[in-house]
Amino acid sequence: MGRSLCVSLEMIGLDEAIEKAVSYAKIGRLTVVEKSIYDACGLIVAEDYYASIDNPPCDKSYVDGFAIIAEDTYGASPFNPVMLKIIGWMKPNDDSSKFILSRGEAVWVSTGSALPRNSNAVVMYEDVSLYNDYIAVTKPINIWSNVAKRGEDYRCGEVLVKKGSMLKPWDLALLASSGYGYVKVYEKIRIGILCTGSELVEPGRNLDKGMYYNSTCVLIKNYLDQIPFVETMYYGIAPDDEKILMDKITAIIGENHMAIVSGGAGYSEVDVTKRVLENMGKWVFKNIAIRPGKPTGLALVNGKPVYSLSGFPVAAWVALEALISPYLYIVMGLKPPVKPSVKAIMKRKVPNTVGYRSFVRVKLFEENGKLLCEPYLIKGSGILSSLVKSDGYVIVSENSEGVDEGEEVNVILK
Amino acid sequence: MGRSLCVSLEMIGLDEAIEKAVSYAKIGRLTVVEKSIYDACGLIVAEDYYASIDNPPCDKSYVDGFAIIAEDTYGASPFNPVMLKIIGWMKPNDDSSKFILSRGEAVWVSTGSALPRNSNAVVMYEDVSLYNDYIAVTKPINIWSNVAKRGEDYRCGEVLVKKGSMLKPWDLALLASSGYGYVKVYEKIRIGILCTGSELVEPGRNLDKGMYYNSTCVLIKNYLDQIPFVETMYYGIAPDDEKILMDKITAIIGENHMAIVSGGAGYSEVDVTKRVLENMGKWVFKNIAIRPGKPTGLALVNGKPVYSLSGFPVAAWVALEALISPYLYIVMGLKPPVKPSVKAIMKRKVPNTVGYRSFVRVKLFEENGKLLCEPYLIKGSGILSSLVKSDGYVIVSENSEGVDEGEEVNVILK
Repeated sequence: MGRSLCVSLEMIGLDEAIEKAVSYAKIGRLTVVEKSIYDACGLIVAEDYYASIDNPPCDKSYVDGFAIIAEDTYGASPFNPVMLKIIGWMKPNDDSSKFILSRGEAVWVSTGSALPRNSNAVVMYEDVSLYNDYIAVTKPINIWSNVAKRGEDYRCGEVLVKKGSMLKPWDLALLASSGYGYVKVYEKIRIGILCTGSELVEPGRNLDKGMYYNSTCVLIKNYLDQIPFVETMYYGIAPDDEKILMDKITAIIGENHMAIVSGGAGYSEVDVTKRVLENMGKWVFKNIAIRPGKPTGLALVNGKPVYSLSGFPVAAWVALEALISPYLYIVMGLKPPVKPSVKAIMKRKVPNTVGYRSFVRVKLFEENGKLLCEPYLIKGSGILSSLVKSDGYVIVSENSEGVDEGEEVNVILK
Repeated sequence: MGRSLCVSLEMIGLDEAIEKAVSYAKIGRLTVVEKSIYDACGLIVAEDYYASIDNPPCDKSYVDGFAIIAEDTYGASPFNPVMLKIIGWMKPNDDSSKFILSRGEAVWVSTGSALPRNSNAVVMYEDVSLYNDYIAVTKPINIWSNVAKRGEDYRCGEVLVKKGSMLKPWDLALLASSGYGYVKVYEKIRIGILCTGSELVEPGRNLDKGMYYNSTCVLIKNYLDQIPFVETMYYGIAPDDEKILMDKITAIIGENHMAIVSGGAGYSEVDVTKRVLENMGKWVFKNIAIRPGKPTGLALVNGKPVYSLSGFPVAAWVALEALISPYLYIVMGLKPPVKPSVKAIMKRKVPNTVGYRSFVRVKLFEENGKLLCEPYLIKGSGILSSLVKSDGYVIVSENSEGVDEGEEVNVILK
């Protein structure tokens, strides 16, 4: 009988791969650093932050108008306007004790002014007319109208931002409103990226016959640089040499929290990455049942995650989009970002091999007012233009034999 | 008759505001800079880039397997396997002329290898068995199976990336694959941010009675820093003083392509921003019919856009989300990014004042397997926690009197 060449095609499903990665390939200890709240968006906060004050610190007007006593206006109508005497003007930083309102009186207030004592509502400029020192109010004003009550936003001692959350612009504004000028965050996850392939040349250099420009690591680096709590370092191209690759991986792992090696992920003579990782570390998984991107593997080397990705850019992109990006969010305790998607009608039949989850690049177009999508050929994971020209992708389940012509699909926008 | 206080409440609709901003408030000339393709994601490319080579430069295998002559396999079946003699091995950078295939022969190829002369298909490792120097093929292989044809990705001279497009990771990979190590891009749009308000203190400093921490500019800066072709510079807090504000705006406009002034956007005594802009420049619009965010204005000062935003963080956020972010993309000739959204049932009636487009923050939750949303009160554009705790927002049209309880709405996720 003939010898099968499929020496190492053990593979697991994508969901299981993410679960295993999250369970077994932790990101090591991240140093805590202090960042200005003006410059911390997307970083992960390293401790719980509590409100140091009530906010607002007192009852405040949130419009330009007149502070009044609501009860004064209860009978007001256009035919029976209530006249209130203006007794003064509150500037935004005046104290509430500057005036003590009596019935029949009003105080001019600006947006953000404290409410003068005894007043319990604000009527907007637009809703009154001015008669010398009096305003005419022509409708009843509810109690606490246009007033932000003390502590309405938050109370002193409340948690403002929880340890482990990713800082959004509004979280930082909330911290600022309570007086925090700096915030303790985790340093960014450092990912070292290495390219392998004796046939590869850096873009910008001369190209000898039989050589190709490295494009996959350009994609990997720029893709990961979009994740705000990640920083990348590119380590260049290593030849298909086990010793050199081993040394490079050791160096990268020493300087980073995680490594990604692009290329050499198959099982032929020249595919050294998988053999090197087999020798250096411990597999979490060797291949994933996705198309393209099957040779995507993950090993632990000195306890640190080392991902082995296809040297083909489209296969590497699927691994980033479907595995590594969700992994990075989930392993940090965050929800992966939701991507926008649209429903469209598939224009052509897309066959699928049962057992593989396929990521089919599609182009959207309109026909008779309906949104349709045209698949790019599944083959050619080296064909970058299929990724560049597509509007998004359709995920075909591993349980499905494909998508029929005319079937409605969910197109995830790139 | 009484004097109305509504001196300057002229306002235009949001769509008209965006149109006017894009038409009249251009971003000035941006300097062209060269960036490494490893570090240019999200920047705007400053010239057309053309392919310098065919890609792939020759017919290549895109799997590990054996290059064959497809016609040899046409009668193959498990009962009638075709035996092909292995005549050698192509490394990824070997030239196609290394072997010239005859009928009945096969050459071992790796992913990315050039196809040897005369071969016209590749059979995958997984699909053959090895018998000493022979492989057994048990099914017919189509011509050009597993082969990326010369120029299939792109042809020499084709446009790879068009001037004015925003560089995505795959665009940069495409440029790399054609040998470009650097790419000419526009410098980032520099936006200077100024805060006004005599009652405001920088977070981190001591808070005197009647003073408040500046949080809105923290939100504005961090929000804009997420746009990859923008860089921001924060200019601190200016008091409510026309002369000082005028000097600050002059300085900012001198150093930046655009300015944003937060606070002082109303029409009371202390609201100096609008008065200063009235004196310094030319209005594009003074207010917008949105809630919150009505006092959002835009003026041209020395031909440069100066946005006047509410000092309230939630109102400023609506202006950023609904106006300034779309403006920046459209004015640069780009499509604003699509935000993910979900359909949900509104739990409570949300009234709307006809004529205003309202941005209602909502919290999502599930009930009996259905997705519902609960609105935060529309009031309180100073209430940051409504923004922090919400999952997204619902846009209520200016033509609508509101959303009924039980109505299906589109929730745009933050």
